Amino acid sequence: PRSVEFREGKVHIIDQLLLPKEFKVISLETVEEVARAIKTLQVRGAPAIGATAAYGLALLAEKSKMENKEKFLDEFYRAFEVLKNTRPTAVNLFWALNRIKDIVEEHREESLDKIKSLIVEEAHKIADEDVEANLRMGHYGAEILPEGNILTHCNAGSLATVHLGTVGAALRVMHREGKLRLLWVDETRPVLQGARLSAWEYHYDGISLKLISDNMAGFVMQQGRVDAIIVGADRIVANGDFANKIGTYSLAVLAKEHNIPFFTIAPLSTIDMSLKSGKEIPIEERPKEEVLTCGGCKIAPDVDVYNPAFDVTPHKYLTAIITDKGVVYPPFERNLKKLFE
Amino acid sequence: PRSVEFREGKVHIIDQLLLPKEFKVISLETVEEVARAIKTLQVRGAPAIGATAAYGLALLAEKSKMENKEKFLDEFYRAFEVLKNTRPTAVNLFWALNRIKDIVEEHREESLDKIKSLIVEEAHKIADEDVEANLRMGHYGAEILPEGNILTHCNAGSLATVHLGTVGAALRVMHREGKLRLLWVDETRPVLQGARLSAWEYHYDGISLKLISDNMAGFVMQQGRVDAIIVGADRIVANGDFANKIGTYSLAVLAKEHNIPFFTIAPLSTIDMSLKSGKEIPIEERPKEEVLTCGGCKIAPDVDVYNPAFDVTPHKYLTAIITDKGVVYPPFERNLKKLFE
Repeated sequence: PRSVEFREGKVHIIDQLLLPKEFKVISLETVEEVARAIKTLQVRGAPAIGATAAYGLALLAEKSKMENKEKFLDEFYRAFEVLKNTRPTAVNLFWALNRIKDIVEEHREESLDKIKSLIVEEAHKIADEDVEANLRMGHYGAEILPEGNILTHCNAGSLATVHLGTVGAALRVMHREGKLRLLWVDETRPVLQGARLSAWEYHYDGISLKLISDNMAGFVMQQGRVDAIIVGADRIVANGDFANKIGTYSLAVLAKEHNIPFFTIAPLSTIDMSLKSGKEIPIEERPKEEVLTCGGCKIAPDVDVYNPAFDVTPHKYLTAIITDKGVVYPPFERNLKKLFE
Repeated sequence: PRSVEFREGKVHIIDQLLLPKEFKVISLETVEEVARAIKTLQVRGAPAIGATAAYGLALLAEKSKMENKEKFLDEFYRAFEVLKNTRPTAVNLFWALNRIKDIVEEHREESLDKIKSLIVEEAHKIADEDVEANLRMGHYGAEILPEGNILTHCNAGSLATVHLGTVGAALRVMHREGKLRLLWVDETRPVLQGARLSAWEYHYDGISLKLISDNMAGFVMQQGRVDAIIVGADRIVANGDFANKIGTYSLAVLAKEHNIPFFTIAPLSTIDMSLKSGKEIPIEERPKEEVLTCGGCKIAPDVDVYNPAFDVTPHKYLTAIITDKGVVYPPFERNLKKLFE
């Protein structure tokens, strides 16, 4: 089943904050509910956020009572802004919203009904294409990842996308082909996407895994028990630098120290050619409560914290970028450009 | 007040599992209670464990009803074994127990009362010397640490020793001298000694600090916001390799990548000249529940975990080792030897 769906005028998502204690699909009925679900991380993962936001606009198109085109468009642009301002780092959100805005603007002269149906259609396309992209990426990834023990961080699995995942697709193909011996899952503090989501979904699929605290990854590498590291991405820029869940940069440095190949995997919608270097990517800081608590328990006195949700890994640490249009090797600046030609 | 005390025939410790929610001093009345407190981490930190175990033998000496010397010695050796088998990695435990055993064996011909009082006396000496060692180390540390932002991992503060701490002493001296701008405190999963203990004790002392998840340390270094890293040690061996809380090795690699000086600080009782390299240090693996839970909350489905409590940092990552007999620079093998001449 898909992690994000749009049926009967509602956006259905798996509430990722309740996992792994409870598997619950919730229905979002307004743009504000969709925005809140993105902001609070009920839905997270760059591609999943993109599809959910697109469906937020589809929801508006199906439910809006505006019969005047201009008034509907006002409402549309307001919804666009509300959804755009939910999270700053992952670029798929802006990519999906802009794709729908472009369709609307291209067809501005059409009837209101036509525009509304084009919005819904485009949102479904975004979601369907994500699934297809994951399938392709999964095969590219499984082909270049070495057989053996793979380490991953955060969750770039089925839950982070519409279906299958980016990292998730590659791991599932490897698992099916008998190439995945053991998966090391970083718990991924502070929000525990590794412990709560990756451990849950990969264990469910029968993949042999071991959960570790983030700070154990280096020791496991030192012991020679990691053959490759693969992570998702929230934004990849023109020179190959990329933002991903906090902790990714540390893994990249550790991978280099141990000569372990290090990959990111993401669809083209994650690539932002408008930024030249990773230094330009805005990094979201999240509430201090995420660091002061863990899985709902208070773990520290009320002190100051720093809570960046992402970090930026310079491209020099990357072995290759796996996309739905093939594997990109260094020099990334030249080779990423070719993807868009 | 000291973290470990022996009065009125009882060993008094701060129950570190209850911090920071509750500050509670508990009294241990039997060797078995002392052993359990060490095993369950009610008392932790290499020097604190050493002193607590020594007081465990003092407790036996004061309370034993044996009036026959041979029978008392049987009881003593049984207690020695029970205490020795609590935790495998930190060497201060064995050092403190052996120090008392040596005293007993040297004075085997004395009266039983004399032997008992020598045991109690030696245990007090071990504790007092720890406090003095920390004071000296604190000054050596504050002298060579650069002014600015310091990052630490786990807790090597007052709670980890009899008083003041190893890292804690250095930080406190720096703070008093106005040299400590900001302290970055790693939360230190899985047992959260950073979030629960370091954040608590340094905040209490008015040190300006920010708590971070372990996986944020690399990003903070990348931003140029760390001037030095200092950690404690559970065992330093002849070539300068050392075991410390899991996550230390990753910090060492990250420090090297960012040209940040990296220090460990420990009393001579932490140095084990009988082992040549860090590969020989036994690494304790702890129960899976520590990884599957956090601060008392369940955070993951019931999957396999790997839970090493320590890792080993090769000496090549170390800028210097700060001891109570001065600062040791490379080549460590030669210079550590000199300490014991």
